[in-house]
Amino acid sequence: MHNCQFRVYYEDTDAGGVVYYANYLKFAERARTEYLRDVGINQSELAEKDGILFVVRHVSLDLKKPARLDDMLSINTNVEKIAGASIIMRQEISCGQIDLAHLSVKIACVDTNMRPARLSDNVKSKLV
Amino acid sequence: MHNCQFRVYYEDTDAGGVVYYANYLKFAERARTEYLRDVGINQSELAEKDGILFVVRHVSLDLKKPARLDDMLSINTNVEKIAGASIIMRQEISCGQIDLAHLSVKIACVDTNMRPARLSDNVKSKLV
Amino acid sequence: MHNCQFRVYYEDTDAGGVVYYANYLKFAERARTEYLRDVGINQSELAEKDGILFVVRHVSLDLKKPARLDDMLSINTNVEKIAGASIIMRQEISCGQIDLAHLSVKIACVDTNMRPARLSDNVKSKLV
Amino acid sequence: MHNCQFRVYYEDTDAGGVVYYANYLKFAERARTEYLRDVGINQSELAEKDGILFVVRHVSLDLKKPARLDDMLSINTNVEKIAGASIIMRQEISCGQIDLAHLSVKIACVDTNMRPARLSDNVKSKLV
Repeated sequence: MHNCQFRVYYEDTDAGGVVYYANYLKFAERARTEYLRDVGINQSELAEKDGILFVVRHVSLDLKKPARLDDMLSINTNVEKIAGASIIMRQEISCGQIDLAHLSVKIACVDTNMRPARLSDNVKSKLV
Repeated sequence: MHNCQFRVYYEDTDAGGVVYYANYLKFAERARTEYLRDVGINQSELAEKDGILFVVRHVSLDLKKPARLDDMLSINTNVEKIAGASIIMRQEISCGQIDLAHLSVKIACVDTNMRPARLSDNVKSKLV
Repeated sequence: MHNCQFRVYYEDTDAGGVVYYANYLKFAERARTEYLRDVGINQSELAEKDGILFVVRHVSLDLKKPARLDDMLSINTNVEKIAGASIIMRQEISCGQIDLAHLSVKIACVDTNMRPARLSDNVKSKLV
Repeated sequence: MHNCQFRVYYEDTDAGGVVYYANYLKFAERARTEYLRDVGINQSELAEKDGILFVVRHVSLDLKKPARLDDMLSINTNVEKIAGASIIMRQEISCGQIDLAHLSVKIACVDTNMRPARLSDNVKSKLV
């Protein structure tokens, strides 16, 4: 399991006094990017050398409690499933002991023409 | 069914050349707000007079094709289900004949202490 | 003078209950894009055919009064000055009779290597 | 001089392949918030106890070079001037040896009715 932390700033909040719902997807993507960086998958390199891109196909977002200004969010990221041309990641966002949001994100592997592409064994081995 | 349209500007796109995935949730919320305004539900008034707020509890987002800079997005919004203290809305985002994204959004009705609150008959009657 | 209008949604506000300061730059850019579209300057076409891009070099932003949720913002856009390879635009954002923000934006004309490029007579004639 | 660093993620970029111009104001505000936190000024506390808010009145933004995806931005923040009811901060954003953007931000101190309020000696002493 991979963990990283991000602070909530004014830009993330809305007039309801809490984090705007779409912004949980921003925090989640920062966490996935850091996860991939940490396991040695460089998305820019993958695109240039192998012509392989990761694109989000499906997001399921459960909002349990609202995050607020100045909160330090902790995000856990797990690879739940690896298929031939897609990955499902599970992410949990919390603040201290409080469970705030859960996400399930399906990411497809595509070539530069946006057609499904198989994940290479090299990439797969880093994700397991 | 309610429809409204929004243009894609630079702010909505990312370095992949397409609309950033979290921003579909922004377009969807603009559309839900316009829907509520059109059926005569004023969220600020509801909050002040009745102490009732709508909060998003769950989002399911399917991304089919990417939207791009300058696209005029068309968003259809339907109330799929009304329960005692929640509403499920279904939204479809397209550009011309191209189907881009589908969302299902569960919205809870809460009081100012964030406890579940029943939808009034007046509000319900406007949503049907 | 060119005018266009945009509604303030939750995404534009912050926990202070007003429009987040950076978002005035988003509204201003939407207005400049609509201005260019209306005078017949297609930025994508300019980039593809002539290899010419517009990039913002300087912004001066004066914030007079805060905009709030549901406000309908009115934005006036004027070309203040056209030089060989740059344009200065002046923009005013208001809501009803209330003056909210003023911007002065310097836009440079560059080629695909980001070197200054002269504005063509055709483009200049549309801006005057 | 205060320094902090922030990574550029997809959310910060636009279809031009670079950081969207309004987002430099987001990075700058994160840096000002961290600066205030580090010198012991808690904005939420200031608001609750003293009824004092900081609001941005003017921003001058110079864009020198574009930041790109994955760049680690370094932001220097200095208090340039302290007046009775306002502060001017100067901020410089760079990546490695490359100077990207300069900002000058005038922040006013106001009471809860948005009228100018004097900075307390306690707050002033922390800013010098």
